[in-house]
Amino acid sequence: MQVKLAEKRGFCFGVKRAIAIAEESGGAITFGEIIHNHRETKRLEAAFGVKIANNLAEIPHGAKVIIRTHGIEKHDRAALIKSAAKVIDATCPFVKKPQKIAEKMRSEGYQVIIFGDAKHPEVKGVLSYAGDRAIVIGGEEELARERIYSRAALISQTTKQIDAFYRITAALVARTNELRVFNTICNATFENQNATRRLADSVDIMIVVGGKNSSNTKQLHKIALDFCADSYLIEDAAELDSAIFAGKRLCGVTAGASTPDWIISEVVSKIENF
Amino acid sequence: MQVKLAEKRGFCFGVKRAIAIAEESGGAITFGEIIHNHRETKRLEAAFGVKIANNLAEIPHGAKVIIRTHGIEKHDRAALIKSAAKVIDATCPFVKKPQKIAEKMRSEGYQVIIFGDAKHPEVKGVLSYAGDRAIVIGGEEELARERIYSRAALISQTTKQIDAFYRITAALVARTNELRVFNTICNATFENQNATRRLADSVDIMIVVGGKNSSNTKQLHKIALDFCADSYLIEDAAELDSAIFAGKRLCGVTAGASTPDWIISEVVSKIENF
Repeated sequence: MQVKLAEKRGFCFGVKRAIAIAEESGGAITFGEIIHNHRETKRLEAAFGVKIANNLAEIPHGAKVIIRTHGIEKHDRAALIKSAAKVIDATCPFVKKPQKIAEKMRSEGYQVIIFGDAKHPEVKGVLSYAGDRAIVIGGEEELARERIYSRAALISQTTKQIDAFYRITAALVARTNELRVFNTICNATFENQNATRRLADSVDIMIVVGGKNSSNTKQLHKIALDFCADSYLIEDAAELDSAIFAGKRLCGVTAGASTPDWIISEVVSKIENF
Repeated sequence: MQVKLAEKRGFCFGVKRAIAIAEESGGAITFGEIIHNHRETKRLEAAFGVKIANNLAEIPHGAKVIIRTHGIEKHDRAALIKSAAKVIDATCPFVKKPQKIAEKMRSEGYQVIIFGDAKHPEVKGVLSYAGDRAIVIGGEEELARERIYSRAALISQTTKQIDAFYRITAALVARTNELRVFNTICNATFENQNATRRLADSVDIMIVVGGKNSSNTKQLHKIALDFCADSYLIEDAAELDSAIFAGKRLCGVTAGASTPDWIISEVVSKIENF
């Protein structure tokens, strides 16, 4: 099987930065998974003794703590600063930006509207800065049931699709006197999505490699499906089933921003050998 | 011929206010046509001696001057305040609003983008408050050739169609980091447009009454055509041609915000007698 890789794929700036921080902080505890990739977090634990705590209660007093790329909630940060011996912030700068915007917009009296997945850690973090009137919406269709104030500010989870963001913007203009729109979708997301679109349109089968809890990976899979019906999301090479490649000539491979190159290489090698 | 009137039509708040001001200011000169309706401005001249000056040069020093509903440019206003004995401001409050927003956004460092007709007095007025980087665009298709700055503020001429405003908003989100969107389309415009849409969809022929230089009247005609192919824009009853009603049963009538009731009544009577 012939394999073609997406021109832009895998680790983004924020993930590379977070991993470098973890590798330099042997023995530290990460608040939540530092990135959404189980095999990479296991590698960090095996090689550098960096473990994961899922909440404040799991963090021993006086520990050295790394804040994950997706950021954490405001009150957790405050508590951490009090209790931990050292707090190392690996929040992606592109996630810090919507946090800061949310805080500023709240202080200026705007209702903050976040386009994103309410259960995702990044969105929970941003929401914690956004004030009481803030809402999270997963899509345009959810807007109808929400109260929208006359002055509102719209921001996006960094990994969302831009087209849906446009539609939400238009729907909100109809219901506000002033809408401030901050395009906080990160450039790496944008580039990975475009590359996936181009690749999926030119191959017989698409493999998207990444964590199944990774928002940006799920978006890539969704986009791939729009252009290539035979698109599959896998976490690593072990999930590859040769049967799906029957009758196919060219396989496209892309990977989410939290997928390390070594996992992508394993996947490519295995497909090439089919 | 049976006639059905649009539920919302004709004079809006700003026009009523301006005419009341003119009627109370006998002998005054209006800077530009106070409203875009020739017969009404002729009536004001005949009954109250209120004449029109088309520019500063035509205004005698020491005159009593009324600023038209659509507003005037900033430098003209400043000159007028110096030269006129009295300046009476009949600028519609809904037009003042985008002027003030433009001035504020410019002072806060945003590029001001005005959706409107660059030749219309209202837009010229708003633009004069909007600073050097400001642009006027007539539609989404004009955006491609314009330089858009990363922080921009979008406002609309008060009489534009909201759907086009949505599309422009979405296109601008793609090209900015922050976009501030001010929905400055006035409510009367919105209501007249909706009523026209409903009426045009239920009649055999539509007559839109209003000035051919009136932006909101032209929009009503455009909307009427979308729902009823036999839609005509006329300035008054004299333009009605009985031939266009042949074979029609029900005629819808609406009117622009600058069309007085007495002109609408003349039109309705004439159609009913066909």
